[in-house]
Amino acid sequence: MVTGTAHPPGGAHPHRVVVVGGGFGGLQAATHLARAPVELTVVDRRNFHLFQPLSYQLATGALSPGEVCYPLRAIFKRRPNVRVLLAEVEGFDLDARELRLKPGAGDSGPLSISYDTLIVAGGSRYSYFGHDEWQDLAPEVKSLESALAVRGRILSAFEAAEMEPDEPRQAGWLTFVVVGAGPTGVEMAGQIAELARDTLRRDFRAIDPREGRVLLVEMADRVLTSFPPSLSRRAARSLEQLGVTPLLERTVVAIDRDAVTIEAPDGGSERIPARTVIWAAGVTASRLAARLGELAGAELDRAGRVAVEPDLTLPGHPEVLALGDMVRVRGADGTPVVLPGLAPVAMQQGRYAARVVRARLRGRSIGAFRYRDKGNLATIGRARAVADLHAIRLSGFLAWAAWLVVHLWYLVGYQNRLLVFIRWSISFFTRGRGARLIGAAPAGR
Amino acid sequence: MVTGTAHPPGGAHPHRVVVVGGGFGGLQAATHLARAPVELTVVDRRNFHLFQPLSYQLATGALSPGEVCYPLRAIFKRRPNVRVLLAEVEGFDLDARELRLKPGAGDSGPLSISYDTLIVAGGSRYSYFGHDEWQDLAPEVKSLESALAVRGRILSAFEAAEMEPDEPRQAGWLTFVVVGAGPTGVEMAGQIAELARDTLRRDFRAIDPREGRVLLVEMADRVLTSFPPSLSRRAARSLEQLGVTPLLERTVVAIDRDAVTIEAPDGGSERIPARTVIWAAGVTASRLAARLGELAGAELDRAGRVAVEPDLTLPGHPEVLALGDMVRVRGADGTPVVLPGLAPVAMQQGRYAARVVRARLRGRSIGAFRYRDKGNLATIGRARAVADLHAIRLSGFLAWAAWLVVHLWYLVGYQNRLLVFIRWSISFFTRGRGARLIGAAPAGR
Repeated sequence: MVTGTAHPPGGAHPHRVVVVGGGFGGLQAATHLARAPVELTVVDRRNFHLFQPLSYQLATGALSPGEVCYPLRAIFKRRPNVRVLLAEVEGFDLDARELRLKPGAGDSGPLSISYDTLIVAGGSRYSYFGHDEWQDLAPEVKSLESALAVRGRILSAFEAAEMEPDEPRQAGWLTFVVVGAGPTGVEMAGQIAELARDTLRRDFRAIDPREGRVLLVEMADRVLTSFPPSLSRRAARSLEQLGVTPLLERTVVAIDRDAVTIEAPDGGSERIPARTVIWAAGVTASRLAARLGELAGAELDRAGRVAVEPDLTLPGHPEVLALGDMVRVRGADGTPVVLPGLAPVAMQQGRYAARVVRARLRGRSIGAFRYRDKGNLATIGRARAVADLHAIRLSGFLAWAAWLVVHLWYLVGYQNRLLVFIRWSISFFTRGRGARLIGAAPAGR
Repeated sequence: MVTGTAHPPGGAHPHRVVVVGGGFGGLQAATHLARAPVELTVVDRRNFHLFQPLSYQLATGALSPGEVCYPLRAIFKRRPNVRVLLAEVEGFDLDARELRLKPGAGDSGPLSISYDTLIVAGGSRYSYFGHDEWQDLAPEVKSLESALAVRGRILSAFEAAEMEPDEPRQAGWLTFVVVGAGPTGVEMAGQIAELARDTLRRDFRAIDPREGRVLLVEMADRVLTSFPPSLSRRAARSLEQLGVTPLLERTVVAIDRDAVTIEAPDGGSERIPARTVIWAAGVTASRLAARLGELAGAELDRAGRVAVEPDLTLPGHPEVLALGDMVRVRGADGTPVVLPGLAPVAMQQGRYAARVVRARLRGRSIGAFRYRDKGNLATIGRARAVADLHAIRLSGFLAWAAWLVVHLWYLVGYQNRLLVFIRWSISFFTRGRGARLIGAAPAGR
């Protein structure tokens, strides 16, 4: 019984599919294969799916972890043909069709699992542009733990300011720098501004949180570069109305405990005293992309993404599919195309991968993957958002309402949807943030 | 403005009250003084109030931190005469009427604050009976972080069992030992049994979580010794029905990474392989009790509680009141009485302390503190509880309903009440536990 967790019984067995990653792509692939006649294994380092588009709300205390995370096992509990393994991928043996895993709990040794089809959806993380030493100084909000660490730092900064008698030092505690003005950076900056302006307005006695500064540093010449310029302008205006200062065409060149140094296009640099820096720039693919690329001789781009065939298979390995933020997909002309690093791309690719497997089981094949771009949403704050739905561009309340509906819809688990809906409804009226807790982990830098 | 956080302006000032501790006692004292003509300072190491009677539900993933914690600043945001300080008490200068604090955020140095009246409600923690080295091996669930660490260990134990090919080792991962059969221990054991039996029933493929063993070790000859024996018997029966094995008249004599050794009254000892041990026994008062006792020459009991006068004042220091789990109150005959370490005791004492201060401001005095014991509730599991309401003793569904109502009622914040009510309602029908997340902190021991 026990070794059965690692190796399927000898002899005839159903088609064995292994999905690596329980993010948007992996989860869509797995749920769309769960009813197929396959023996399915889902491998993830964590025991839950994190709804990443809302992790910035964890980082500002608007939502609590149990509301945006959903246990992976709960998703598949009624599917006896699906097993979930809490494990980290150690490596691939593409010839033997085996995956080497390091269990994520307990002290049993590494284990190997065999597959007939492997689907790898390892995702991506932020890249610190070669400055990995900035990771501790400027945490990101992509994982649950780092989002909670950011929450602790933001809230502790206000606490530290309240306690700090020296005015310049107090100003450093009340200056928040967000690096990168993509959707996450914009949302994060907007939330910090609202936290200071609304939620914490009456909370302190020695400081006025509304005097806090929120700076949004961006290399490009506008915020939200993935949106049309007209919406970027509206987003920038909304940010400014909230009290966020966008600093465009600026590059971060140094971060230390007390300040961030940014460089302007003219080469001049400025050292801004700031005790809280949040990173939301750059992207680098999961290490799994490089591993696969190496083994299959597939090319990698600068962000570490591996090039896959138009049907998401690894070159020379039709039994291995890779998808999501860690891949570029070859187009009809053979050139790999970078699709935006968005949940809808990964979800469509995950569903496509499941369809590929199901078609093959019936001896059929399907056409190349095609991304259907339904539009792009980003929220800035309360009743402020931008929506590029191609046919129509929205900003303000309507865009915000669209954002709310879409995010509630895609949130995993009806209980989470209900709880998040209630939190948002109450916050809308009270401007409160119920989960603004500082953990016992070392607060401040 | 800034040093004003630490020192009130010279000259005439309103009566300055400092409350140490944002638990049940301190919070009641503070909220009942917030409208009085005083300058009130609330000091706590954490920025939130934790509703401790539900922390065991954090430890089993039934509730999420943001639902049982409430930001202290939010409670007083509309009271400009109240300030909250995130700080740890370093010491007291009773003669100078000053409190020395170490700020809990930032890097400003220690600070002193002056008081006219000091109310100390430092609470208690579990005592490891002189075996502080057991703290890491057998964490408790009293603080937010340790409750979340326990959650990670319990869930990781099931994950480790799923991965473990060796059957005896697997059994070790599936054995859970709870030490201490007071309300928290009973609730914890019941929740682990329900987690294994109901929530996780279909979640694994190599193990059957229902085969997990939950052992509840208790020194006394019955569970819930603070209840009448008839209710202890019913509680024990309910526990057994849930699959918990109470081990009465047993003492823990050793804990290591793989096992717990317990001693029977006949002196025989047994080593039980178990990878997850949860501590819910003994009690030791906050260090602040010893500090106050030393300074005022007041006696301490074995649990470190300081003896206070019938009006909760420190002997010889009528301007210092101490209350809650860290004190014994002298009765009419002068003998200090130990009241149960329950939220209602601390809450009544907190309200009493506020009344003492308000009466003094009007030049009056009030009678000695008297605890009004309204009864005692403990829950065992779904629709299982015991209630000793003196006039009537309940068990089963009615007691459970009473428990639910009382806990929702006393939970701080209407948003938390609503969210917890929804979580409980859904769990009642689905037997699910939405917040069963394993943190990235080192899981397992």
